[in-house]
Amino acid sequence: MSAQSANQSPDHPITRSPDHTLLIVSRHADAYRALVERERLADLSVVSATVATDLPPAAGGADIVFGEPSLIREALPQLSALRWAQSTWAGVEPLLDRSIRRDYILTNARGVFGGLMSEYVFGYLLAHERRILQKHAAQQAGRWDPTPPGTLRGKQIGLLGVGSIGAVLARTAKHFGMRVKGYTRSSEGCADVDAYFHGDARLEFAESLDYLVSAMPNTPATRHLVDAALVAALPPRAVFVNPGRGTSVDEAALAEALAAGRIAGAVLDVFQQEPLPADHVFWRTPNLLITSHTAALSIPADIAPVFIENYRRWVSGEPLQYQVDFERGY
Amino acid sequence: MSAQSANQSPDHPITRSPDHTLLIVSRHADAYRALVERERLADLSVVSATVATDLPPAAGGADIVFGEPSLIREALPQLSALRWAQSTWAGVEPLLDRSIRRDYILTNARGVFGGLMSEYVFGYLLAHERRILQKHAAQQAGRWDPTPPGTLRGKQIGLLGVGSIGAVLARTAKHFGMRVKGYTRSSEGCADVDAYFHGDARLEFAESLDYLVSAMPNTPATRHLVDAALVAALPPRAVFVNPGRGTSVDEAALAEALAAGRIAGAVLDVFQQEPLPADHVFWRTPNLLITSHTAALSIPADIAPVFIENYRRWVSGEPLQYQVDFERGY
Repeated sequence: MSAQSANQSPDHPITRSPDHTLLIVSRHADAYRALVERERLADLSVVSATVATDLPPAAGGADIVFGEPSLIREALPQLSALRWAQSTWAGVEPLLDRSIRRDYILTNARGVFGGLMSEYVFGYLLAHERRILQKHAAQQAGRWDPTPPGTLRGKQIGLLGVGSIGAVLARTAKHFGMRVKGYTRSSEGCADVDAYFHGDARLEFAESLDYLVSAMPNTPATRHLVDAALVAALPPRAVFVNPGRGTSVDEAALAEALAAGRIAGAVLDVFQQEPLPADHVFWRTPNLLITSHTAALSIPADIAPVFIENYRRWVSGEPLQYQVDFERGY
Repeated sequence: MSAQSANQSPDHPITRSPDHTLLIVSRHADAYRALVERERLADLSVVSATVATDLPPAAGGADIVFGEPSLIREALPQLSALRWAQSTWAGVEPLLDRSIRRDYILTNARGVFGGLMSEYVFGYLLAHERRILQKHAAQQAGRWDPTPPGTLRGKQIGLLGVGSIGAVLARTAKHFGMRVKGYTRSSEGCADVDAYFHGDARLEFAESLDYLVSAMPNTPATRHLVDAALVAALPPRAVFVNPGRGTSVDEAALAEALAAGRIAGAVLDVFQQEPLPADHVFWRTPNLLITSHTAALSIPADIAPVFIENYRRWVSGEPLQYQVDFERGY
C-alpha cells in the first residue's frame, strides 16, 4: 500500500488498528513528528520522545524506530517488537557495538549530505585560496592588503572515499576547474573523478595534491588511513580537510606535520573525542581550523523524506534504501 | 595571414620588415612579452617597457599598444602611429576621459574574469553561511562552537549586471541550488537567471534577496545604482558583495545602513578612492569586509591570449573582440 492511498483524515476515520507503530526518539522529535504526520502514512501510529529515558508506554509495541543512533541504542532494551531502525544520522557507530542486539534492519541517512558537505569543503578551500582570514586580519589592522589571492582552477583535489558525498565534492571541484583524484576500495563509478587509486597506491594518490579531503565512514579499514606516511607524501602546499570521521586520522601525526610546516594547513570537523578536550594538542597547532562537527548537520526537512520513502518501501515489501551492514560498518 | 602560418624562427629569418610594431607597456611587461613572443606572431615586432616615462625609441612607430590603461594613457602622446590599444584590464576609465584622443580602436580584457570573480563571490558567500570568521574567533578563544551554519541552497542571489562575469556567477549560484535574479539594462540572455528585472523594477529586484552582487562596469548609468533606496529595499538578512566598480555604490548610504544593522553585511573589493583612505568611514563600519581590489586580478597567462586572438583578427581584417564604445564606457 502506498502513502498516496492512505486516508486518515478526520472525516474518514480508520476503522481498524494501524499495522505499524513508529517510535521517534530524537532531539528534534517534534519537528520529525510533524513532518511524518503531515504525510498521513498508511497504517501507522506515531509516538515520540526527545530522550530515551522517558519513552511513552506505547513505545514498547513499536516495530519501527527513527532517531539519533545514540538514543536508539538507549531505547533498544525496551523495544521488544523492533524490526527496523532508521537513523537520522549517517554515522551509526553506537549501534555497531558487537555486545548489543542486531536482530533488526538498520538503515542510515545517506544521499542528503552532499550539498552541505560541498558548501563546507569549498567554503574552506576558497577561504584558503582567497586568504579570507589574512585579509580580515589586515583589515583589523587598518591595512590595505593587495596580496594576490590564489585560485582553485588547475589545482588538484584528492578524495579519500567517493560515495554519494564524494561524488558531489567531485562535481563541485570540476565546476571550479580542478583536477580530481579518487582513492576508493575498488569503485570507479564517478565520471567527475579524473584518476582512481586503490589499495597500495595510497601514497601515489597523495603526491601532487593541493587538497586532500576525507569523506569516509568509520570502519576498521579506514582507521588511521590518514597517517604519518600519507601526510608525508603530500606536497608542502597541501591542505587536509576532514568532514568525514575523526577515526580516519592519526591525530598526533597530523599535529606534528602541521607544527613542522610539512603541510600548509588542515580544516577538521571531526575528532576522535568530541567535544575536542581542552588539553588536546590541536588547540595549539598552527594552521589548523576547528569547525566543531558542524560540516553537515542532519536537518529534519532533509532527513524526514529518507524515512518516509523507506516506510513506503517497508509497507510495500520492497528492499529499504541505505541498509547498514553491521559487520562492514556502513 | 594567421598566426599559424608565421615562421620567424632563427633558422628561417624573415627577409622583410614586420608590418606591425607592438608596444607592451605594463608592470608585467616581461611576462606579457614572453607570452606574446612565444606565439611567433606574423609580421610583428615587439618592444616593451614597465613604465610610460621610459619607452624605447621604437615605441614611437608602434601601431599597437598592449598594457594597463593608466600606462597607455601616459604613453598616448608619444604614440603618433597608434591604431589599436588592447587593455590588460577590464576597466578602461583612464582612457575614457573626453579630453584625450579617441582616434584608435580600444579593446579591453573580457571573458577571462568570470572564474576568478566566481571564486571571490562564492568564497565570501560560503564564508558567511559557514560562519568561517566566527568559528575562527571561537577557536582562538579555545571554544568548541557547535553553532549550526547556514546553507546557500534555496537562498536568493541578485546580480546587478549579467554580462560575461554575471553569467558565470549565475551558473555557480545554480550549482549551489540558489535562485537567481538579474537586473540588466535590457538583456535577458542568460539561461541561469530565473527572473529578470529592468529600469524602474530596481527595488522589486532587491526585495527578498539574501545576496546582492554588483558586477557592472563604470558608466554614467551605473553610478550610485546601489544607493540608499536600493539598500533600504533589501531584507535585513541581506549581504552586499561588490567586486565590480566602486562608483556604483553610494558609500555613505551603505556605511549608514551597515552601522544601523539594516542589512547584515557587505564585502567590498572596490572603492571610489583606492587605496581606501585611512580616514574613510568603511574602516570603522561594522559587518564590512574589505578585500583591497584583489577580486579578479589580471593574470598575464589569462590576458595574453586575449591579445593574441585579437592580433590574429587584426591581421586578417576581422572585427576585434571586446571593443569599447568610448561613449557608452564599456
